Amino acid sequence: MKFIAIGELMLRLSPPNYEKIVSTHNYIANYGGAESNVAVSLANLGVDSTFFTVLPNSDIGKSAINYLKSNDVHTKEIIKSEGRMGIYFLEEGVSVRPSQVIYDRGSSAFAEYDYKDVDFEKILKEYDWLHLSGITPALSYNCRKLIDKAVKAAKKLGLTVSFDPNFRSSLWSFSTARDVLSKYLQYVDVLIGIEPIHVYREDGTDVKDGLTMDPSFKDMDRVFRAIDKQYHMKAIARTVRYVHSGSNNSLKAFFYADGETYESKTINFEIVDRVGGGDAFSSGLIYALMQDDMSAEDTVNFAVASSVMKHAIRGDTNITSVDQIKRLMNNASFDVLR
Amino acid sequence: MKFIAIGELMLRLSPPNYEKIVSTHNYIANYGGAESNVAVSLANLGVDSTFFTVLPNSDIGKSAINYLKSNDVHTKEIIKSEGRMGIYFLEEGVSVRPSQVIYDRGSSAFAEYDYKDVDFEKILKEYDWLHLSGITPALSYNCRKLIDKAVKAAKKLGLTVSFDPNFRSSLWSFSTARDVLSKYLQYVDVLIGIEPIHVYREDGTDVKDGLTMDPSFKDMDRVFRAIDKQYHMKAIARTVRYVHSGSNNSLKAFFYADGETYESKTINFEIVDRVGGGDAFSSGLIYALMQDDMSAEDTVNFAVASSVMKHAIRGDTNITSVDQIKRLMNNASFDVLR
Amino acid sequence: MKFIAIGELMLRLSPPNYEKIVSTHNYIANYGGAESNVAVSLANLGVDSTFFTVLPNSDIGKSAINYLKSNDVHTKEIIKSEGRMGIYFLEEGVSVRPSQVIYDRGSSAFAEYDYKDVDFEKILKEYDWLHLSGITPALSYNCRKLIDKAVKAAKKLGLTVSFDPNFRSSLWSFSTARDVLSKYLQYVDVLIGIEPIHVYREDGTDVKDGLTMDPSFKDMDRVFRAIDKQYHMKAIARTVRYVHSGSNNSLKAFFYADGETYESKTINFEIVDRVGGGDAFSSGLIYALMQDDMSAEDTVNFAVASSVMKHAIRGDTNITSVDQIKRLMNNASFDVLR
Amino acid sequence: MKFIAIGELMLRLSPPNYEKIVSTHNYIANYGGAESNVAVSLANLGVDSTFFTVLPNSDIGKSAINYLKSNDVHTKEIIKSEGRMGIYFLEEGVSVRPSQVIYDRGSSAFAEYDYKDVDFEKILKEYDWLHLSGITPALSYNCRKLIDKAVKAAKKLGLTVSFDPNFRSSLWSFSTARDVLSKYLQYVDVLIGIEPIHVYREDGTDVKDGLTMDPSFKDMDRVFRAIDKQYHMKAIARTVRYVHSGSNNSLKAFFYADGETYESKTINFEIVDRVGGGDAFSSGLIYALMQDDMSAEDTVNFAVASSVMKHAIRGDTNITSVDQIKRLMNNASFDVLR
Amino acid sequence: MKFIAIGELMLRLSPPNYEKIVSTHNYIANYGGAESNVAVSLANLGVDSTFFTVLPNSDIGKSAINYLKSNDVHTKEIIKSEGRMGIYFLEEGVSVRPSQVIYDRGSSAFAEYDYKDVDFEKILKEYDWLHLSGITPALSYNCRKLIDKAVKAAKKLGLTVSFDPNFRSSLWSFSTARDVLSKYLQYVDVLIGIEPIHVYREDGTDVKDGLTMDPSFKDMDRVFRAIDKQYHMKAIARTVRYVHSGSNNSLKAFFYADGETYESKTINFEIVDRVGGGDAFSSGLIYALMQDDMSAEDTVNFAVASSVMKHAIRGDTNITSVDQIKRLMNNASFDVLR
Amino acid sequence: MKFIAIGELMLRLSPPNYEKIVSTHNYIANYGGAESNVAVSLANLGVDSTFFTVLPNSDIGKSAINYLKSNDVHTKEIIKSEGRMGIYFLEEGVSVRPSQVIYDRGSSAFAEYDYKDVDFEKILKEYDWLHLSGITPALSYNCRKLIDKAVKAAKKLGLTVSFDPNFRSSLWSFSTARDVLSKYLQYVDVLIGIEPIHVYREDGTDVKDGLTMDPSFKDMDRVFRAIDKQYHMKAIARTVRYVHSGSNNSLKAFFYADGETYESKTINFEIVDRVGGGDAFSSGLIYALMQDDMSAEDTVNFAVASSVMKHAIRGDTNITSVDQIKRLMNNASFDVLR
Repeated sequence: MKFIAIGELMLRLSPPNYEKIVSTHNYIANYGGAESNVAVSLANLGVDSTFFTVLPNSDIGKSAINYLKSNDVHTKEIIKSEGRMGIYFLEEGVSVRPSQVIYDRGSSAFAEYDYKDVDFEKILKEYDWLHLSGITPALSYNCRKLIDKAVKAAKKLGLTVSFDPNFRSSLWSFSTARDVLSKYLQYVDVLIGIEPIHVYREDGTDVKDGLTMDPSFKDMDRVFRAIDKQYHMKAIARTVRYVHSGSNNSLKAFFYADGETYESKTINFEIVDRVGGGDAFSSGLIYALMQDDMSAEDTVNFAVASSVMKHAIRGDTNITSVDQIKRLMNNASFDVLR
Repeated sequence: MKFIAIGELMLRLSPPNYEKIVSTHNYIANYGGAESNVAVSLANLGVDSTFFTVLPNSDIGKSAINYLKSNDVHTKEIIKSEGRMGIYFLEEGVSVRPSQVIYDRGSSAFAEYDYKDVDFEKILKEYDWLHLSGITPALSYNCRKLIDKAVKAAKKLGLTVSFDPNFRSSLWSFSTARDVLSKYLQYVDVLIGIEPIHVYREDGTDVKDGLTMDPSFKDMDRVFRAIDKQYHMKAIARTVRYVHSGSNNSLKAFFYADGETYESKTINFEIVDRVGGGDAFSSGLIYALMQDDMSAEDTVNFAVASSVMKHAIRGDTNITSVDQIKRLMNNASFDVLR
Repeated sequence: MKFIAIGELMLRLSPPNYEKIVSTHNYIANYGGAESNVAVSLANLGVDSTFFTVLPNSDIGKSAINYLKSNDVHTKEIIKSEGRMGIYFLEEGVSVRPSQVIYDRGSSAFAEYDYKDVDFEKILKEYDWLHLSGITPALSYNCRKLIDKAVKAAKKLGLTVSFDPNFRSSLWSFSTARDVLSKYLQYVDVLIGIEPIHVYREDGTDVKDGLTMDPSFKDMDRVFRAIDKQYHMKAIARTVRYVHSGSNNSLKAFFYADGETYESKTINFEIVDRVGGGDAFSSGLIYALMQDDMSAEDTVNFAVASSVMKHAIRGDTNITSVDQIKRLMNNASFDVLR
Repeated sequence: MKFIAIGELMLRLSPPNYEKIVSTHNYIANYGGAESNVAVSLANLGVDSTFFTVLPNSDIGKSAINYLKSNDVHTKEIIKSEGRMGIYFLEEGVSVRPSQVIYDRGSSAFAEYDYKDVDFEKILKEYDWLHLSGITPALSYNCRKLIDKAVKAAKKLGLTVSFDPNFRSSLWSFSTARDVLSKYLQYVDVLIGIEPIHVYREDGTDVKDGLTMDPSFKDMDRVFRAIDKQYHMKAIARTVRYVHSGSNNSLKAFFYADGETYESKTINFEIVDRVGGGDAFSSGLIYALMQDDMSAEDTVNFAVASSVMKHAIRGDTNITSVDQIKRLMNNASFDVLR
Repeated sequence: MKFIAIGELMLRLSPPNYEKIVSTHNYIANYGGAESNVAVSLANLGVDSTFFTVLPNSDIGKSAINYLKSNDVHTKEIIKSEGRMGIYFLEEGVSVRPSQVIYDRGSSAFAEYDYKDVDFEKILKEYDWLHLSGITPALSYNCRKLIDKAVKAAKKLGLTVSFDPNFRSSLWSFSTARDVLSKYLQYVDVLIGIEPIHVYREDGTDVKDGLTMDPSFKDMDRVFRAIDKQYHMKAIARTVRYVHSGSNNSLKAFFYADGETYESKTINFEIVDRVGGGDAFSSGLIYALMQDDMSAEDTVNFAVASSVMKHAIRGDTNITSVDQIKRLMNNASFDVLR
Repeated sequence: MKFIAIGELMLRLSPPNYEKIVSTHNYIANYGGAESNVAVSLANLGVDSTFFTVLPNSDIGKSAINYLKSNDVHTKEIIKSEGRMGIYFLEEGVSVRPSQVIYDRGSSAFAEYDYKDVDFEKILKEYDWLHLSGITPALSYNCRKLIDKAVKAAKKLGLTVSFDPNFRSSLWSFSTARDVLSKYLQYVDVLIGIEPIHVYREDGTDVKDGLTMDPSFKDMDRVFRAIDKQYHMKAIARTVRYVHSGSNNSLKAFFYADGETYESKTINFEIVDRVGGGDAFSSGLIYALMQDDMSAEDTVNFAVASSVMKHAIRGDTNITSVDQIKRLMNNASFDVLR
């Protein structure tokens, strides 16, 4: 299985030691972005993984490419262009202080590139799985065109398409997002997260009406079935996060496949680095779905364990191994391994 | 409302990463002191805030002044003099290991300055609120004179005077402290903390007899009323801290105003930096009392939230915003803010 | 003398320990910009100094303001607006490896602000000296309007106007720069640097024809006189830099005032941080010109010593004292001061 | 009481800030080894403590010796020889991510030294207590000879011999370890840990059959008695660790002396550094047994508190004081000490 | 042109900030080795570059592979095996203090691997250029076999073979090295360095007799011709280093091709990191020889500039671009590039 | 030969990376003092070395003792007392910026201790060589008494006494220093530095009249002879430092023994850390004088090389080996040692 993700890669700058942006004198440099996080995590799990993006043709862009390469992600599809690299400043939260992201991603090389001459059919025919997120179409008109072209080419070529709607209120309105993203769903096979999309009953009301952040199994089952009926998915998943503090959360997930809904175990955990937690759920889920020998129960538990493990790792991605995630999923001891 | 605090500012030296003083090779430099912590926190909350102290006329002193300025505290009243700057070494505690302070504050420029030619009436007439603590009179005879002059000038000029007794057993005995500090109470409007002061019943026994570190509402109400009766306060407050470990505490507070006693919510929290937690309660309380639109309940809850938030921030002071404290006070989500 | 500078303040990100951008994992955060560097250095020399700019209304912007405040620069004129803060990445050179700057300053809050409602006469009337550079008009149409308004208001109000043409080839072409910047010269009193401006002979040929990077005294005298004749300056100065390596340079300067040209001593020096060296020449020159008791020879030597000293200091600015610069200017010993 | 331990001292290299080995660019250097950890901790508790090992005659070896000296451990018995120093790489665990050790200790100077000319009777006659662990005989044939000679010399000279079996599955098999280590038990007075050793019933079955990681008091009592009967010990101890996560454990211990079994309090604690936790139990136990005035209950509680305290300290050893351990053992407040 | 190098890759541990090994508490982790340094530098110059080695199948080995990948070196030929990774400790010299290397490379996975089943013809047929050094055969009997097989396979397949004798006195004696390495010379096309090899006159005396560290052009020409006559080389080169201090050197080189000897310019430079200077000469030379458009003079000057540039970069390799080296070779300004 | 030095040990706090005190946020902690620097350097050269001082009985004092121990200096004579530890802040100079020391050593435990009950005869009888400096008597009346007692006891017991006048203008006036220090000279055998002491001609004029910082051999010879005549010294030495910049100096020395004056080679060197350079001359000189096989020429050249080497090492002391100093003294290559 050859995997490719398309999206923006940003330079992530975060003060060390839980310092605040307002008083820091140093930034730790990492790289992140919803889709690249999935590509990097999958490569670390051993999947043949490629990332498509546009980066500035400078040492900043080269440094980002080095980051991908050192994580075993293929970079040959990356376009080097004029312009700047998107940046996000991350103040890592701790205790009662939430993490805080300040985006400086406007006018990036990725957002401003004109994709009209990019032949996505030629690119994608080498791959089996395409991953996209709802952030890209929110960045620019060009990016919306990019997703449009990519998702249609993928469908035509028969790739499995996974999609994480990933709503960002700082980029666009909920209703615009819902309208735009829903149009892509006909091309999607694996849906990871269910907001913001349209799912209507026959009477035109939204099936998700009244669905809370902590829904019952029955409610989720009902919604999953409605989505499947309307858009025909191979799999759908959604996490439920209990935010006890900036340093301590619990996580579980619901998963739907072959007409059945499954609920994972709930894991409580301390947080080292919050960002990318959702993306590590996606990478865990995609990894599990790629395996022949993982049951639906194992699939959702592996995905949750992958996400939880990521919170114990600095940076946006889950750079552990399959073994380490399985140890967590199977309740192996947390004591020192010698 | 223009605020001024008077006190000693010390250079704080703490080993990084919870290392121990006995084996560290580096110190992180910060600045702190009970009264300056209040001034700095209030400035970060948007209050017009000034600090009066004496600092050595050297790059060490200049660095301390830069620290105040960068936090928006006015420094024009600071006297530059001969002598040294007080230092405190802080070994930050974690888990079962308590934080430990080693003071090296003897013979400081602040403690040794002769304040006889300082015209406090001239200085204070520009301000509306004066904050003092019980540490200053413990430092030297000169400092006791300083407090005496300042508190009387403030009373004469009609400033609101807040006072935190802040007993330090390494500086003087409890009984001396109680005798000295009680004399200032007639000039105090807002009392933050109730030890060590005299509060007598008519039969000469101490009203606080039997009052524990975790008193009942009824007991606190009784003591507050006695203090008010004896000293006529606008407001009195006291925190209750539950020290589960060096890394995990809970905090609540009692508050008395207009003849009524109030009890805040109790918040449990992880600790990044313990020192200055009490001062952030003071700054939160003073900020809330300065607002027209905060109820007594909001006032005490804001003060507790301010203190709790400070424990999640490195350094002696609460350099967050009013919004961030209100989010905590109102139980907003701790999840990442994008 | 009250000084104000107008310009863009950028976040400067540089890898520690002469690491390369392409392989660094950390950035040291500083703040810099040609005009703010002058304001900060002057404040450190004891001049009442203010900086006007536009910064984003975020913790990034607040951190920049804190930097200015901690350096004693007044920030009350700063406009907080939407948008981003310009960034520049600096790879500090060493030995045979030159320093390298990657700009990411496009679409900054400063460049995109519409200054039409800013009343520069109202702002500038509180000051005696205005400093500008040729970088600002290169940033955007709005910024060109800003300089236009500011320089005319300053002239009208009788402020001394100093101007550093500071050509940046990455921002605009030499010929455009020359045309635009030359128009401002009628409002300028102190010109620091002579490129890129028009200075014509009667036959229309450029007086600077054939002027090298290492001109003779005679040639410089001729050019200075031509500029004075054409634009009527109080003072003109120009540095000459001998770049022996990325770590070792020599510097001297020519200075023209009251119809006479002066040449400074040449100082050879090791480089700790190259950026801001020119701005420290400007601040040294402006400081010296503000003094009643410094001769023309002292003025140019002080300016050169100020620039040289800055190269021994990390960050964009010369945060030393007048005494330290005078020690260097007067050949005092470099041995340890106890 | 003069104490000596014999064993290997390794260079410990661990990434800072819970980074992973696979992506770190820095290592913090410490020194550790089961037996030296006990020697160093005891020296910090004030015991006259010596360490015997073999180290390379290089700056790496000298640095290790400096470490011991700076911790007040006598190093005069250390042999400087050819060869390398053993290394272990430690990835410190946090939250759901366990600590991980990668050993690179093969072919060390200690393992390869030929001890045939070392006169252990001459060395040991100056000491009262010898501490050994089951790691040394697992390293090499030479090391097995070393332990053989040392333990017999100690017995002959009448030293108290403490022994921690400390099974390491990466070094040898459980059954070999059990056979080899059991042979030493006749020379042992204080046994710390009960695996892997032979303890047989009369019918030849293992007394420890069915003994879990969390045994009942009754079961432990039975096993302790069997060990005492077979090997005649002055004291036996065993810890029970509850591993809630990589960052949070609880610890208690069972202790047997003079025919009686005791169970300590259970302490829950956050973990800063997991490695050396067991060795700090040993050092606490040995310290307590050396005192005349500590009851059996105090002994086991002091040993547990010593181990728990070590988890709050970076590095392999408990560099606190007796007072700090007793504060923990006696439930003193965890709040800041001023 | 596809390039491959074969050799050992070591973990390099060096104290930061010119600290000494004997007193450091931190190590910066890099990776280096004579042959991998050439492969990494060539990849940074844009050459398709591959490295063959054996690494332990652990996170230490994985981290080394990530390093290569992030530098664009292909790692598909790397064998993962049991065993350890060689380490070298580097104390970076400065001023009058020379750099010092402590090797801990014994018993490495690379040295102990049995290469008998490795089919070098199959591996090498994909490449055009093979680079080897005289360090590998010094490591072990297995490694000598490895070089034997590789060099013969390369010759058979028609690859260009470059060879750097690189004598290390800590690994073997000069006379053994000379005997062993001379045998490989018949398979070598490009010889980089001339010690320790046999070059005899007809009377059996060594042609290099009397050749100093700073030979005349005439002497070098004579020796080069003798080597060419005896071994038939396409090119031969040798650097001359003038070590003024631990921080300041000068470098030039002699180069022989097509029957002519050339002498480069001499460049004086400050040193940031001394190690890998020779390997950067090799990579510069190989790069230049791969180009069609570089004259012999340019070739040797590019190689010297490549080596000099490397001394201004931390780590073992020259991670600059062709442009940056050409700027140095062509005496472009060292001033800041904006 | 057993060596002991008496003096104050201070905590040295210096910003990293040549940052300025006024803007630093971190301090590197070291320990230093003129006499302890000599003791530590001698211990690193293999001399049996002891240091006598008074330190506070706290973790700060313990940390200082650990520093001495880790450098092999015996600490058994150190008195632990009440009070504070002297501190000095060091801003390390570079290029045109001189190093700057801010002392905060007033009221230290060492200065305030009452030495009347210390039996120096009992202490000193175990040693062969006592080293003192002129700083100690400048600290306090108690310290003057201390030196008085120590130097007389040493004389009585027949120890060799070395003395470095080491005038510090921040502690006392030149004329007081000269009067006080001259009184000790009758007890001194080895005088290191000749200021500020009285040396009179018969007509009462000062022999050193007209002696410059760069005296001729003839002038130094004349002065040495006059000192010897007046005070009867075994040896006298004086360094001459040429301060080219804050980063580059040259050093030579004059040495007088057995009626002859010698002049060393002059060594030019880059500076990593300036402080302690003079003390490393003393330690080098004392080491050489302790050897039987070093000529007068070697003695002075070894002392100069020891001082020069120290400038290449961070911290106050020369922690190299005899071999490394001899390499420098003998002009061995500065190239990397493998």
